[in-house]
Amino acid sequence: MPESVKISVIGAGSATFSLGLVKDLCLTENLKGSEVSFMDIDAERLEAVTRMAERYTAEIGSDLRFEQTTDREVSLKDADFVINTAMVQSHYHQRDMREMMGKHGYYYRGVSAGSFYQFELMMGVARDMERICPDAWLIQSGNPVFDGCTLMTRETDIKVCGLCHGHYGYFHICKVLGLDLDRVDFQAPGVNHCIWMTHFLYDGEDAYPLIDQWIEDQGLEYWKTHVAQGTHDIQLSRGAVHQYRMYGLFPIGDSPRSGGWWYHTDIDTKKWWFGEPWGGPDTHLARPLHVEKLEKRMAEIRGAATDSGAKMTEVFGTEKTREQQVPIIDALTNNVEGVFQVNVPNNSALEGVDDDVVVEVPALINKKGIQPIHVGALPKKIMLEQLLPTILGMERGIEAYKTGDKSMLLYNALENHQTRSYKQAFMALEEVLAQPANQELAERFKYPWPEGHEKVYLMD
Amino acid sequence: MPESVKISVIGAGSATFSLGLVKDLCLTENLKGSEVSFMDIDAERLEAVTRMAERYTAEIGSDLRFEQTTDREVSLKDADFVINTAMVQSHYHQRDMREMMGKHGYYYRGVSAGSFYQFELMMGVARDMERICPDAWLIQSGNPVFDGCTLMTRETDIKVCGLCHGHYGYFHICKVLGLDLDRVDFQAPGVNHCIWMTHFLYDGEDAYPLIDQWIEDQGLEYWKTHVAQGTHDIQLSRGAVHQYRMYGLFPIGDSPRSGGWWYHTDIDTKKWWFGEPWGGPDTHLARPLHVEKLEKRMAEIRGAATDSGAKMTEVFGTEKTREQQVPIIDALTNNVEGVFQVNVPNNSALEGVDDDVVVEVPALINKKGIQPIHVGALPKKIMLEQLLPTILGMERGIEAYKTGDKSMLLYNALENHQTRSYKQAFMALEEVLAQPANQELAERFKYPWPEGHEKVYLMD
Repeated sequence: MPESVKISVIGAGSATFSLGLVKDLCLTENLKGSEVSFMDIDAERLEAVTRMAERYTAEIGSDLRFEQTTDREVSLKDADFVINTAMVQSHYHQRDMREMMGKHGYYYRGVSAGSFYQFELMMGVARDMERICPDAWLIQSGNPVFDGCTLMTRETDIKVCGLCHGHYGYFHICKVLGLDLDRVDFQAPGVNHCIWMTHFLYDGEDAYPLIDQWIEDQGLEYWKTHVAQGTHDIQLSRGAVHQYRMYGLFPIGDSPRSGGWWYHTDIDTKKWWFGEPWGGPDTHLARPLHVEKLEKRMAEIRGAATDSGAKMTEVFGTEKTREQQVPIIDALTNNVEGVFQVNVPNNSALEGVDDDVVVEVPALINKKGIQPIHVGALPKKIMLEQLLPTILGMERGIEAYKTGDKSMLLYNALENHQTRSYKQAFMALEEVLAQPANQELAERFKYPWPEGHEKVYLMD
Repeated sequence: MPESVKISVIGAGSATFSLGLVKDLCLTENLKGSEVSFMDIDAERLEAVTRMAERYTAEIGSDLRFEQTTDREVSLKDADFVINTAMVQSHYHQRDMREMMGKHGYYYRGVSAGSFYQFELMMGVARDMERICPDAWLIQSGNPVFDGCTLMTRETDIKVCGLCHGHYGYFHICKVLGLDLDRVDFQAPGVNHCIWMTHFLYDGEDAYPLIDQWIEDQGLEYWKTHVAQGTHDIQLSRGAVHQYRMYGLFPIGDSPRSGGWWYHTDIDTKKWWFGEPWGGPDTHLARPLHVEKLEKRMAEIRGAATDSGAKMTEVFGTEKTREQQVPIIDALTNNVEGVFQVNVPNNSALEGVDDDVVVEVPALINKKGIQPIHVGALPKKIMLEQLLPTILGMERGIEAYKTGDKSMLLYNALENHQTRSYKQAFMALEEVLAQPANQELAERFKYPWPEGHEKVYLMD
């Protein structure tokens, strides 16, 4: 007899995410009778999402119960699963910060407050869970998955599983190469946003030669003429293929976005590596479009929400999403075993990485739990040039967060390859911390040296 | 009854080094009757050094025998100790390379061939030792000590001990602060050229407050008015003190030279951080001076060598040098126990560093061998921002050397914070490898991708 569960969704105001979850639940017979508790600090959006969820469930004729609350503790009460999808800072705030950084001589990626606000939120949720629902699984679905999951698993006793879409990037390779997805086997371990395709099989045979052939035959033409279908359409860009040439394995999904500073110096360079018309997702051209698309979808959803005649099943469809949350919940609850791409503490799954670092690896999931698959080692060069520097950056971010050492934020700013001088990074960081929105951050972070002393070090 | 030994000196053409060694041997009664085998590829300098060594020994009335040979295998025969002080590439070659890099937009530190030639030499010596004198100790006294000793201890079965003068930097702090060296206790572990003063005691009391007081009272004035006594006079420079402010521990000796790219962007910046008139040792002003000083000393020595009336004891003095080679040889041979600053495989002496990485730590040395002292841990921030990135760079250098993967040289060039674009690093590296002096290097290193393919990635 399958068991039903209570799922708490933190940051449920995102209709796309929340309704996708409801859809997957409705289409998962095992989980009928389950309760979904939507939690968000935006009561209005929360109300709209809850109403739509109820309508969708009614249309399908499924059996789910819903709760809505702006009180996190209420939502966590009796939860079996907690899905944290919340983002503290808005796209608009991020845009303002980027504009400010432009004045300090940075293009797009400037000096930042690190992941302070996301860390605060994640730790708040995990600490609450320790008190209220200590046996629940936390399914972390908001960024930074890598850093945040490592932090939470080290600092709390909560069971954490981080999820990301990135690994689906190989779908795109299959599509361009004309390969039937059902005949493909795939493995791409690493850490979140830095995963590398170690295995790519078609009917059990190595399919990398098919990629090589495509690059030889069509690569140059593709890079000259291809118009990206979306801002994230970079899986076969010149930049991604260049990284493949450097490392012998393909970087998957979000990974090619962080392969090296030299892909990102300015918009022309970005277009060269990541294609027209936007130069990949991390540009001043792409970002507004991405936000615009989100807003359009939100408006559409809002319209449907207020139109009592609208069919929710038409707005959100009746096919399962590609999200892993619900299948994983079903696997853990009802033993519907499967292999999933998850972010969990390494515990020797990936060689050469400390056990307490959260890695992204395939895991066998059933009622026994999440059992990472020992994938072996990535090539040493990928470890030394990509994975280990990424892990070191994560460690620095966590240490800065834990200590409140402002000079570690400064170090991070200096490490930005766009920084040209000590003073530039120093002044940019000061302005970041002077923003009203960053007051909490400014109060937390202090220099470890006498106040005012830093002026002795600023060259005129 | 003390034992005598045979010491093979590789790169013995350096009169300053070789005669310093002879002096220390003459002044070490225990080692009388020992044999010193001078080996160099420059027969003329070898002859001069050997004659001077003989004259010096005769003047002192000591009992040492000398051998000179241009054949490394002859020199290694029956050696108990091998001191490798050889540098493959001359200061003049290095100057030419720096000038070439200037044309590619780099100041001073440009794109390099890594430590290829030094690695080749070191591995050649160590491999020869494995065959000829497998029980001898190799005392590595030429750079890169950190990278080279790690490479040799991993790849061969030779016992290796790396030495450097850097840790004596604390002498300078004592001098400026007016502290009596004999009353000072000191510890500065790390990896070579990245060591941090964890302990600084005066009469058994923490003496860091004395440094703090000096910085408060005199720092600013010192940085405004101090004229460096030599190009390496940077131990109390603004840059070194800034690193102390960042990390809470003083970087010692050569360490402040590599604390961050932002200290090194141009000559004005270097002067700001490392003082007038040269801006530290790594500038276009300092380097010729350093070479000039070496040349002057060499001319002086050459004059004395050809002047049969000259007193060698006047040219080289009769006080022991501060070099550790001879005292360590005496400790290992005759159990004259002491604590020395050495570079040996970590084996848990310094926490958070892999066992097979060569660290610089104090070690108790006696007939039993070199026993590193467990110094505990450095502060986490120093590990994350200084030591671990340095170790990662070393690992990349060794991996590049072992694999001959040219794209790892390219990655290293791109990681130089002065590099502004992929193309700049690419073209600079190509020109480095096109130098006649670098033919062997160019033959060894290949890109891991199809020839000519890289052109697809060079943006116009």
